Amino acid sequence: MTAAQIAHFISGTVEGDPNASVTRGAPIEAAQAGDFTFLDNPKYEEFAYSTLASILLVHNEFHPAKPVTPTLVRTADVRTSLAILLKIIDQANNSNGAAISEKASIHPEAKLGAGTEIGAFTVIEQGAVIGLNCKIYPQVFIGRNVRIGDNSTIYPGVRVHFDCEIGKNCILHANAVIGADGFGFAPQPDRTWTKIPQVGKVVLEDNVEIGANTCIDRASLGSTVIHSGAKLDNLIHIAHNVEVGHNAVIAAQVGIAGSTHLGDNVRVGGQVGFAGHLRIADGTQIQAQSGLASNIEKPGTAIFGSPAMGYRDFIKSHVVFKQLPDLQRKVLELEKKLAELEQGSSSRQ
Amino acid sequence: MTAAQIAHFISGTVEGDPNASVTRGAPIEAAQAGDFTFLDNPKYEEFAYSTLASILLVHNEFHPAKPVTPTLVRTADVRTSLAILLKIIDQANNSNGAAISEKASIHPEAKLGAGTEIGAFTVIEQGAVIGLNCKIYPQVFIGRNVRIGDNSTIYPGVRVHFDCEIGKNCILHANAVIGADGFGFAPQPDRTWTKIPQVGKVVLEDNVEIGANTCIDRASLGSTVIHSGAKLDNLIHIAHNVEVGHNAVIAAQVGIAGSTHLGDNVRVGGQVGFAGHLRIADGTQIQAQSGLASNIEKPGTAIFGSPAMGYRDFIKSHVVFKQLPDLQRKVLELEKKLAELEQGSSSRQ
Amino acid sequence: MTAAQIAHFISGTVEGDPNASVTRGAPIEAAQAGDFTFLDNPKYEEFAYSTLASILLVHNEFHPAKPVTPTLVRTADVRTSLAILLKIIDQANNSNGAAISEKASIHPEAKLGAGTEIGAFTVIEQGAVIGLNCKIYPQVFIGRNVRIGDNSTIYPGVRVHFDCEIGKNCILHANAVIGADGFGFAPQPDRTWTKIPQVGKVVLEDNVEIGANTCIDRASLGSTVIHSGAKLDNLIHIAHNVEVGHNAVIAAQVGIAGSTHLGDNVRVGGQVGFAGHLRIADGTQIQAQSGLASNIEKPGTAIFGSPAMGYRDFIKSHVVFKQLPDLQRKVLELEKKLAELEQGSSSRQ
Repeated sequence: MTAAQIAHFISGTVEGDPNASVTRGAPIEAAQAGDFTFLDNPKYEEFAYSTLASILLVHNEFHPAKPVTPTLVRTADVRTSLAILLKIIDQANNSNGAAISEKASIHPEAKLGAGTEIGAFTVIEQGAVIGLNCKIYPQVFIGRNVRIGDNSTIYPGVRVHFDCEIGKNCILHANAVIGADGFGFAPQPDRTWTKIPQVGKVVLEDNVEIGANTCIDRASLGSTVIHSGAKLDNLIHIAHNVEVGHNAVIAAQVGIAGSTHLGDNVRVGGQVGFAGHLRIADGTQIQAQSGLASNIEKPGTAIFGSPAMGYRDFIKSHVVFKQLPDLQRKVLELEKKLAELEQGSSSRQ
Repeated sequence: MTAAQIAHFISGTVEGDPNASVTRGAPIEAAQAGDFTFLDNPKYEEFAYSTLASILLVHNEFHPAKPVTPTLVRTADVRTSLAILLKIIDQANNSNGAAISEKASIHPEAKLGAGTEIGAFTVIEQGAVIGLNCKIYPQVFIGRNVRIGDNSTIYPGVRVHFDCEIGKNCILHANAVIGADGFGFAPQPDRTWTKIPQVGKVVLEDNVEIGANTCIDRASLGSTVIHSGAKLDNLIHIAHNVEVGHNAVIAAQVGIAGSTHLGDNVRVGGQVGFAGHLRIADGTQIQAQSGLASNIEKPGTAIFGSPAMGYRDFIKSHVVFKQLPDLQRKVLELEKKLAELEQGSSSRQ
Repeated sequence: MTAAQIAHFISGTVEGDPNASVTRGAPIEAAQAGDFTFLDNPKYEEFAYSTLASILLVHNEFHPAKPVTPTLVRTADVRTSLAILLKIIDQANNSNGAAISEKASIHPEAKLGAGTEIGAFTVIEQGAVIGLNCKIYPQVFIGRNVRIGDNSTIYPGVRVHFDCEIGKNCILHANAVIGADGFGFAPQPDRTWTKIPQVGKVVLEDNVEIGANTCIDRASLGSTVIHSGAKLDNLIHIAHNVEVGHNAVIAAQVGIAGSTHLGDNVRVGGQVGFAGHLRIADGTQIQAQSGLASNIEKPGTAIFGSPAMGYRDFIKSHVVFKQLPDLQRKVLELEKKLAELEQGSSSRQ
């Protein structure tokens, strides 16, 4: 691809040689001649002045502080432009034409849409219905009566338990588990626990992405729901009857306890935990490792800490936390001085 | 089922129409006519006055504050009653009569009890012994000399490594890993690490439930033991030589480092971490995200924080943490005022 | 094995009966006659005086405070000696001679080195190249063009996606996922997210060990790299473009966000989280549950807390945190006393 072609694909403008050509993408600190790369996070600006890349994608408003060697392609949105270019490159990787493996175990009463591939050692149980042009990798388990929409991709080792519903254009990464039992037990007088059967299901709406080894438990009754456009990273735990709003983004290793509802466009940092039965308002932004124990009522609130507080309040309290030994010393000194003053004062009276 | 039948199954009493009939369960906020639902957590009481359900399970001591439309069935223990009803419904889901799949790989020297089902692409290695009426789903790995007791259920993708022992009535959810190597290395002078072979095993006693993608490492020597009746949620890490007490309940994403022993009836919130070589007394209750770095000696202690403290002490300290900027400001004012007073005092002397 | 033979294998010295003989190892608190055991962690010294083991491995400098029954074998390095002995025992466990299962699905254009075993229901895709004497367990997925070095072990359910590279002598535990997509999306004006294709790869160098259910995401561009000798425990999340240094040791459930680089010999406690784009100096030691939000510049720094601080500073601040209610009370008393003094002082003026 030449710089001129790239500019065409992403509606950008070339600054430098429009015939500069590249064969692959590379990160800015490692790119070589013949690569294209990009500058989005300002932390990496220094590399823009030393990179060996032939083409560099930058924001329209990027003003180099030093000379830049590669041909620049300017765009209003570097990340989206990158997504477009990489998708062109990536298409070669996804066309191995496996069709339906003879080594899969597909129930005669399951239905597969045209263009759908099924890999070896995958199991599709009775009553499952899979849409058009899906890619089901090897070693996947699709339980009874599961529904999967068109154009969805299910990577190796994913388990989707009975009755669960997956929308269109979903991506489920390797070893994710959809619809295992929720964690529900009734305490007994002898201190043992009686299992409460989990007879609900999981619904993933359209355009949902689920990370590797992430677990989304089925509802005890009703549905655990991930609304359309939500993106979940690896090793996340979603308990029974949770609801995650449209276009929410949840980083790795987050845990959400039972029946908690996250609003639309919520953003959750890594390793955050939510107690059960909470309501988290639309657009809430939660810093990594926070612990939510109560509702967030106001849309767009920034949250931090465990137990969680407002973001700015947490930062202010934490600044003092770092100075606590000093603060304690000051209080002890004050006590001492005050005692002296009191003594002086009383000796004068 | 009619209200009268439900009352019969759970030894409850009907308040309203004994012939009210239902075909399925639903959560209280989503139930429709023809559904039964329940009210256990008082947070949901408002829904009792608006639900469209035909039958509502409530505690004997529930006194409605407003009129209630559904027929009530009263019981001493709502959760246990729910478990009983859902089990009746759930039985239909677990009788697909798969028998022993011809697509499984079963070593001729493995033994399978009568009534045990084995799914496609499951591997059962030499010397494994599986009890009566077990349900082993597809794509499971059962290593050499593993023992599994009667009536246990092993979901797709579970791996049970050689020599491990699973009791009766156990449930292992999808992609759980039982008996992978513990994490043990001997440091070398050149800063590399020599692996210490992990030649022990894992023992899960009877009535243990293990969540999806949870890992229980084999002991380096001896056994990692989960005692009878313990329930572990998803994505938990149990290191080598850990012991978990009878009827303990551990929420998702908890991590327990090597050789730590949890007592009976311990309850652990989500994302809690335990250092190695600890002893945690019976009945200890640990809040989510806490970090345990020392023993808990006294049974029934409530714990919170990272590093962990007594629950009430943590709450009290955290209340002040939230006010720290104010506290610091007060100390600075005190210093200023005291300096003024000292000056006044010394100028008088 | 006799005590004399053990001393020979580990270059140790016998103290007691050189003909004392043992058939297996056991932990010190559970060992019986006929077992060997070891004392390394001083926490367990009391058991040295009560153990029924026939042979006890101890440090050269161990001076018993009370009489010891077993024959002692003294060594300069107990853990390494244990590793040597257990490896001798463990070899019996790893020679089941499965060869290449007819139930595996191996692409004709994949290459397998001599002595490599492949288990049932494993998939090896086109262009994969696997070295000599590897052990690939059942139900593994090896994607297109993956490279695996000699003597590596891949446990059941591991997924290695296309183009990824695994070095020599690596061990990948069950259900680990290597090379799933990194978590990268470009925000759109309508609040949806456009996926940024992840076209890079993962490189595990030689002697790397990866725990069960651990996820190492492929780079968006370039490589996610785990350098030689690094050891990762279970349920860890490594995001795209992360780099982990030589001989680093990372405990379970740690999460590392995108493009962060850990130096050589770093040690990370369980459940630690790292923000993205950080640089962590060689030899940094990080306590469990810490949260890293900024670079660590100085090699060998000890770190604790979330957000993270210097280890000693955190401990000092946390000591005061525990006393905060008391500190607050003191400040209130000081305010009261000072107000009284001021009043007294002004009434005198």
